Amino acid sequence: MNENRLAELLKGVWRGQVPVREAVDLLKDLPYSELDIATLDTHRELRQGFPEVVFCQGKTRGQVREILGYMIRERTHNVLATRAEPALFAAVSDLHPDLRYNPLGRTIVLQRQPPETLEGTLAIVTAGTADLPVAEETYETASLFGAQIERIQDVGVAGVHRLLPHLPMLRRARVLIVVAGMEGALVSVVAGLVNRPVVAVPTSVGYGASFGGLAALLTMLNGCAEGVGVVNIDNGYGAACLAGSILRT
Amino acid sequence: MNENRLAELLKGVWRGQVPVREAVDLLKDLPYSELDIATLDTHRELRQGFPEVVFCQGKTRGQVREILGYMIRERTHNVLATRAEPALFAAVSDLHPDLRYNPLGRTIVLQRQPPETLEGTLAIVTAGTADLPVAEETYETASLFGAQIERIQDVGVAGVHRLLPHLPMLRRARVLIVVAGMEGALVSVVAGLVNRPVVAVPTSVGYGASFGGLAALLTMLNGCAEGVGVVNIDNGYGAACLAGSILRT
Amino acid sequence: MNENRLAELLKGVWRGQVPVREAVDLLKDLPYSELDIATLDTHRELRQGFPEVVFCQGKTRGQVREILGYMIRERTHNVLATRAEPALFAAVSDLHPDLRYNPLGRTIVLQRQPPETLEGTLAIVTAGTADLPVAEETYETASLFGAQIERIQDVGVAGVHRLLPHLPMLRRARVLIVVAGMEGALVSVVAGLVNRPVVAVPTSVGYGASFGGLAALLTMLNGCAEGVGVVNIDNGYGAACLAGSILRT
Amino acid sequence: MNENRLAELLKGVWRGQVPVREAVDLLKDLPYSELDIATLDTHRELRQGFPEVVFCQGKTRGQVREILGYMIRERTHNVLATRAEPALFAAVSDLHPDLRYNPLGRTIVLQRQPPETLEGTLAIVTAGTADLPVAEETYETASLFGAQIERIQDVGVAGVHRLLPHLPMLRRARVLIVVAGMEGALVSVVAGLVNRPVVAVPTSVGYGASFGGLAALLTMLNGCAEGVGVVNIDNGYGAACLAGSILRT
Amino acid sequence: MNENRLAELLKGVWRGQVPVREAVDLLKDLPYSELDIATLDTHRELRQGFPEVVFCQGKTRGQVREILGYMIRERTHNVLATRAEPALFAAVSDLHPDLRYNPLGRTIVLQRQPPETLEGTLAIVTAGTADLPVAEETYETASLFGAQIERIQDVGVAGVHRLLPHLPMLRRARVLIVVAGMEGALVSVVAGLVNRPVVAVPTSVGYGASFGGLAALLTMLNGCAEGVGVVNIDNGYGAACLAGSILRT
Amino acid sequence: MNENRLAELLKGVWRGQVPVREAVDLLKDLPYSELDIATLDTHRELRQGFPEVVFCQGKTRGQVREILGYMIRERTHNVLATRAEPALFAAVSDLHPDLRYNPLGRTIVLQRQPPETLEGTLAIVTAGTADLPVAEETYETASLFGAQIERIQDVGVAGVHRLLPHLPMLRRARVLIVVAGMEGALVSVVAGLVNRPVVAVPTSVGYGASFGGLAALLTMLNGCAEGVGVVNIDNGYGAACLAGSILRT
Amino acid sequence: MNENRLAELLKGVWRGQVPVREAVDLLKDLPYSELDIATLDTHRELRQGFPEVVFCQGKTRGQVREILGYMIRERTHNVLATRAEPALFAAVSDLHPDLRYNPLGRTIVLQRQPPETLEGTLAIVTAGTADLPVAEETYETASLFGAQIERIQDVGVAGVHRLLPHLPMLRRARVLIVVAGMEGALVSVVAGLVNRPVVAVPTSVGYGASFGGLAALLTMLNGCAEGVGVVNIDNGYGAACLAGSILRT
Amino acid sequence: MNENRLAELLKGVWRGQVPVREAVDLLKDLPYSELDIATLDTHRELRQGFPEVVFCQGKTRGQVREILGYMIRERTHNVLATRAEPALFAAVSDLHPDLRYNPLGRTIVLQRQPPETLEGTLAIVTAGTADLPVAEETYETASLFGAQIERIQDVGVAGVHRLLPHLPMLRRARVLIVVAGMEGALVSVVAGLVNRPVVAVPTSVGYGASFGGLAALLTMLNGCAEGVGVVNIDNGYGAACLAGSILRT
Repeated sequence: MNENRLAELLKGVWRGQVPVREAVDLLKDLPYSELDIATLDTHRELRQGFPEVVFCQGKTRGQVREILGYMIRERTHNVLATRAEPALFAAVSDLHPDLRYNPLGRTIVLQRQPPETLEGTLAIVTAGTADLPVAEETYETASLFGAQIERIQDVGVAGVHRLLPHLPMLRRARVLIVVAGMEGALVSVVAGLVNRPVVAVPTSVGYGASFGGLAALLTMLNGCAEGVGVVNIDNGYGAACLAGSILRT
Repeated sequence: MNENRLAELLKGVWRGQVPVREAVDLLKDLPYSELDIATLDTHRELRQGFPEVVFCQGKTRGQVREILGYMIRERTHNVLATRAEPALFAAVSDLHPDLRYNPLGRTIVLQRQPPETLEGTLAIVTAGTADLPVAEETYETASLFGAQIERIQDVGVAGVHRLLPHLPMLRRARVLIVVAGMEGALVSVVAGLVNRPVVAVPTSVGYGASFGGLAALLTMLNGCAEGVGVVNIDNGYGAACLAGSILRT
Repeated sequence: MNENRLAELLKGVWRGQVPVREAVDLLKDLPYSELDIATLDTHRELRQGFPEVVFCQGKTRGQVREILGYMIRERTHNVLATRAEPALFAAVSDLHPDLRYNPLGRTIVLQRQPPETLEGTLAIVTAGTADLPVAEETYETASLFGAQIERIQDVGVAGVHRLLPHLPMLRRARVLIVVAGMEGALVSVVAGLVNRPVVAVPTSVGYGASFGGLAALLTMLNGCAEGVGVVNIDNGYGAACLAGSILRT
Repeated sequence: MNENRLAELLKGVWRGQVPVREAVDLLKDLPYSELDIATLDTHRELRQGFPEVVFCQGKTRGQVREILGYMIRERTHNVLATRAEPALFAAVSDLHPDLRYNPLGRTIVLQRQPPETLEGTLAIVTAGTADLPVAEETYETASLFGAQIERIQDVGVAGVHRLLPHLPMLRRARVLIVVAGMEGALVSVVAGLVNRPVVAVPTSVGYGASFGGLAALLTMLNGCAEGVGVVNIDNGYGAACLAGSILRT
Repeated sequence: MNENRLAELLKGVWRGQVPVREAVDLLKDLPYSELDIATLDTHRELRQGFPEVVFCQGKTRGQVREILGYMIRERTHNVLATRAEPALFAAVSDLHPDLRYNPLGRTIVLQRQPPETLEGTLAIVTAGTADLPVAEETYETASLFGAQIERIQDVGVAGVHRLLPHLPMLRRARVLIVVAGMEGALVSVVAGLVNRPVVAVPTSVGYGASFGGLAALLTMLNGCAEGVGVVNIDNGYGAACLAGSILRT
Repeated sequence: MNENRLAELLKGVWRGQVPVREAVDLLKDLPYSELDIATLDTHRELRQGFPEVVFCQGKTRGQVREILGYMIRERTHNVLATRAEPALFAAVSDLHPDLRYNPLGRTIVLQRQPPETLEGTLAIVTAGTADLPVAEETYETASLFGAQIERIQDVGVAGVHRLLPHLPMLRRARVLIVVAGMEGALVSVVAGLVNRPVVAVPTSVGYGASFGGLAALLTMLNGCAEGVGVVNIDNGYGAACLAGSILRT
Repeated sequence: MNENRLAELLKGVWRGQVPVREAVDLLKDLPYSELDIATLDTHRELRQGFPEVVFCQGKTRGQVREILGYMIRERTHNVLATRAEPALFAAVSDLHPDLRYNPLGRTIVLQRQPPETLEGTLAIVTAGTADLPVAEETYETASLFGAQIERIQDVGVAGVHRLLPHLPMLRRARVLIVVAGMEGALVSVVAGLVNRPVVAVPTSVGYGASFGGLAALLTMLNGCAEGVGVVNIDNGYGAACLAGSILRT
Repeated sequence: MNENRLAELLKGVWRGQVPVREAVDLLKDLPYSELDIATLDTHRELRQGFPEVVFCQGKTRGQVREILGYMIRERTHNVLATRAEPALFAAVSDLHPDLRYNPLGRTIVLQRQPPETLEGTLAIVTAGTADLPVAEETYETASLFGAQIERIQDVGVAGVHRLLPHLPMLRRARVLIVVAGMEGALVSVVAGLVNRPVVAVPTSVGYGASFGGLAALLTMLNGCAEGVGVVNIDNGYGAACLAGSILRT
């Protein structure tokens, strides 16, 4: 209810067209039902192609099936499910013929609308082969957001020279996502070579004192290169969201 | 703006006494300025004697002086400042002649109104002498809330027999707050002896592997006695708030 | 042995009806066998409908079967078993025809007595779908305690507006339990909207740096909203116990 | 040395205008001295108004004085020194008459050039008074970068309604920085209300189990709102850098 | 080689009965082969009935079978294997007809000699049913050492009154072992009631923030009762060794 | 009140010499005031020379002065104060002319009674010079307990040969206390050389990743030598208590 | 491209033998393609016998098969795969008839070239049987590097005398690797006996408070013996690499 | 006492030149006093110029003065004291006129003998200005060991191009020490560029989530570059010792 509609209503009261009682009923719940922030929920609908997301980990197959089924039947958006193990996909694959499963990234995608077109490219830089599942989750998510993506793989910091041939590509990206486990130092090196926002995704890849990604996380938080924002361990989805929101600014 | 006032306003519009433009102005910001939740702020004012609180730690003396000065001049509530070192009190003591400082509990109190009267007693049980500063903070806060307080001191779990003579008092309390550092085991013992809510306050008292109160905190969280809610380390103020909210139920 | 019974016994001695030897035997073990605190054990029996509880995790199926069997055969109370995996329930389901299993909450209930009636409602607020198992454990426990429960689900803090329509219900509750994993921030928001005691249950839901619920636990302990008591990670049972003890005050 | 200049040089060799020996000398160090990435160092000079930065913590006064002195005498850039205690400023204040000290943010600024003009506003949202030093560091840094800044203070999540009147301002910002200690939950709430990139700065404000900002850091990393990038604890400078790099995209 | 034997040898040399070459050979390796500390290895053999021990966890079945086989065939001691899962026992049970398996304590025992007789009793106090596996490991180990054992079970600190009837037994023990998980507070209570050495064994029993026994470990280390020595989490074997060495003093 | 006294009282009632009312008064509080465990408090008095102890850390000077003053004036025991900084001793040194201060161990001792004589010697083994303060606290405490002490200093494990000449002394001790910071490995080596109980005291000596004694603590808990009980970090007092209770068995 | 080749090229340009266009093409990519550091990649090829390595953990079988297949078909180096579970070996064993699997060390080796010959011996000292898998990984790696290896097993610090007979061997080694879990103290003892570089490998062997190798890691970092370098937990491969690089100096 | 001297002694006995009694006295303590490992202590004396070391932190000024005084008066070695604050140096500077203090590295050096000459150079690479104190400690220690040192400063990984000009120097070093705080990623980059042993020294430089050097430590342990050995946080002395022992191999 914007200012114009409010004025119309009050004019109706003034003219005697709208009984006071009815106006009270319309207005008394205003703080809750018409609160501008409540329109957030429908915000997403306004942008065609924007996905609806299910985070599958910690949910039973029945719960995921129910949520996905609802999204597929009752809504028209693109759908993204993350952290979906193969057995889970098997349990929901009959819901729609166009469901596409990425076994490495453990994502299920249903693309029903062309994504929004975002300007500028997003570079996804991955340190090692074992970081690819997280990078794939990032890739699938960012693709649904409409990002134009370039990918660089297997450029761990222990061979920094392998990164140099990619410099032109790194530099023309508008945003970069760096996915790295182990010691996670790739983020500092990349962020030191560009002056664009870098989204850092620590992964739980590693062994010994990597403590499930804690080592990489701390490295990325303590890096002295400027322009780095860190997301949670293995949170490829979140990294794509942040990158997407930057590309939309 | 409650329903009656809203009806009055609309009647004024209907009668032509209130111009539509003016009513729009009054109503258009309703979601923000008159939002029911926004009345929370004045909620406290309705209950005479309820204190306003300043947490001094991490604030400069100038900041505390400014905030306290505003509360004293512009408001009529009771005032409580916690974590106030002696030097800080010295820097604000001229703001009002009735400011009272508790050097052990590091609290500053200005009581201008009689507190609300709460039914039932609150027992504050303290494990050791070194836990007294936190217990004092609890005591001062709960006193301003209007709680009737009984105190038991120096009843650490290593001499559980010292606790037994206090059983009747423990049992007649409606709520108990247990303040304990070191290993914090007093909470489990007390909670096992009563069937009232117990608020557990771990303190940073201890040495070696107490890790600043972490040991006591973990003990209290893992205790197998029922009916225990834990607050932050050294958070005597928070414990009193929780106990107060229970006494008011 | 209360004062009256003691006086009767001594009168019997004085009248010669009770031999000194016999009185000595009756009184000499008084500290242990008649100690008032020892009556705690039978305390529960006095309140009909109060459950007896088995925590199944870490016990073998044989141990659980033995304990449950004893409770069912030899006692008349309601029975609650928590952390009971489906296979465990299968192994004990023949013990009584009325055993009821909640597969989401992993609880086994045998209700043989109507629960105590507690005044006021308990609101159980759950952040996400994956927190439901803990919320179910809370629900089953509190139901056996006799609490009148209202439930609000899927109101994570990232969509704070989804919480607002529930404000009236939140405000009319006498006690609230907030169950949240991930960053656990829902507790601070809810506690800031009501002035009733809030029991906070961190869950191990989350990934990456949630560290098995540690992140949510720390958030809840450090929250600046007043009136919050925290229980152990995933401890839905403990939260219901604390809420029950508050409702009984 | 770009392709054209290289071609010119080689033509000079071909024409005999450039002796082979001289060309070898010019080219032999090419990989190091002319490496494109080596031009990064002078990158900053190309953008007038961009500051040069000294992080003072952990450096002796002599070291800071030497570095600052060099920057002031030999360069023409704007200068920013962070983590500068008052005594440190006293020790360097004579280096230039226009050095400006912010005692709350502990920054020293020498503005000699108008900053770059960045499009869109940056909102700096601060949870509590004790978080202001970090917010000030952010503010001073972002100002030198040329950001147009709007500030919202003291809007902790425990009074979420205090945040609502600021919604329009939050929504019109292109980037937001949220500075919060204690439980750090403000980030999730703010990020849930906007769909712009949010830079989260945990602060070491808090006590007990806040563990020097760890609690806030974990909260921010685990938040379920999308579009959040986290920087190091108390790293106001880093947050401004990330926000600046986003505004420049 | 003691002083007398050394003198005899040298006299042999002096008399010409022992050639110098032979004496050099006898003496040159003295530092290693005759070093007093090297006799430690045969120390155990001198005390009949003392067991030889295999810690099975982390060893393959083949490795355990080989070590046990050697002990059984080539030695005459009692044998104790700890952390032996049922499948492991199945894989070695044919090695000797008298091998005895304790499935709760996961121990394999071969008693071939009567144990040493130790004076005084050892009390093993267990907090909860789930702590029994560790208590059983303690019991089996201490039995082989020859300790006279009294056991008290299920006396968690949340019902401290249940402990009181056992006071006489606690007090007549020469050494006590307390096995407790969850918050581990039983140690402090027991140690406060006796003045004998108490060996504290934290167990990994618990959930949520017990962090695999860390909470109980910290509680036991920080306890303020005197006379407590702590062993590693779940280390029932080690506790029995320490108690045994105390009983032998 | 033992059985005989109870019989006497009842006979008085039977004979009419003691009125029933009076007997009720005497007996009704029996559970609390005469509870056998309550006699623990006077237990210490029965053993002449046993000290009373004040742990000074975390107490104000006024509090320590008050407690010490009471002990000195009203009691006749030996007195021990630990963690007493020089300034604290200066503030209480006038309480008694015989107060003796050990500045290295930070202990205050008032010996008024000859200590109990304990059989067998206690060896205190210290790894490095920086561990001496804790070793001194141990020494002073054990001396008051009446232990016969032998000391070995500066025998860190990095020079294991320096330990060997002390083997005879290590072996003749009935109990050993090993005080070590840094990596704390001395405990394992010593415990491997003797078969007596070893009390391990980790100290906060070290730097870098010693984390205030955590490294030494973990080493000692994880040591594979048998017969080791660990006390809290820097807890020299507690180690002496445990050793004393072993020597008294 | 060294200086001479550069001079030749330029002379060719000068003489007109090399067209400018061609020279530009050769030189323009110099920073990347001819950068001296880029030759690192082929560095390994120059030393015959040096292995190429695949770290299998965290990679799918398909990924490992592809990488190994490429190495075997397209290259001529020795090949080493670490962290290869038996099932993984089964999935790749058909790639080459000479693949050799070490089930204890979980390594796959294909030796096609004689290794480099390194001067001096490498001693691998292992604390316990359960540490052998890591020691085997070290052994296989170092063997491929060409190290001459001597092995000492089962010499835990709790029986330091068992180590002494090996002193001569320890002392003649040029480098030592010590593999130890539990408390990891063996490193300090060994490093105290030799004055050669010692590479310390903490293993995750242990239980209770060993926290997955953290205890051993901290011990090794905090050891006071000189000349020790620590690698990651369970990182047998990395230890061999470091030892190899020392032997090659 | 080697084999020859032993044979000589025994021949003397045989010839009657050495009385049996005297030979017994010489030989009876052999295991301890002549044990080969006991000669370690005098090992250092054989290498002229090798320093004797005092670690000052945690020692009182009196203790340091006593130890240093003894070394200066009674021995002839070079002397090194580390972690010596200026006030400490002031308290010992009169002990010898040639004591040299390095205020940045906090070292005291007394060079009385020319150091051993080690072949090959040691490169000390430092990430930032704030890491210099640790680097200075390394430099002073290594200098006394006789290492030829080259230093590279201020080459943090965020500007990896600044490192490239130093490549030739990095590559000609026989051993490298990398000193880095913050995220410590410099180690991985340097180790990836050379194939020499790299000693990694994490420093406690950093803020926020660097947790006193823990972040850098974990980074260095988890780095995927080969040939890295890590020492304790801020342990510049230990790094130099390890490097020295490698240079001596």
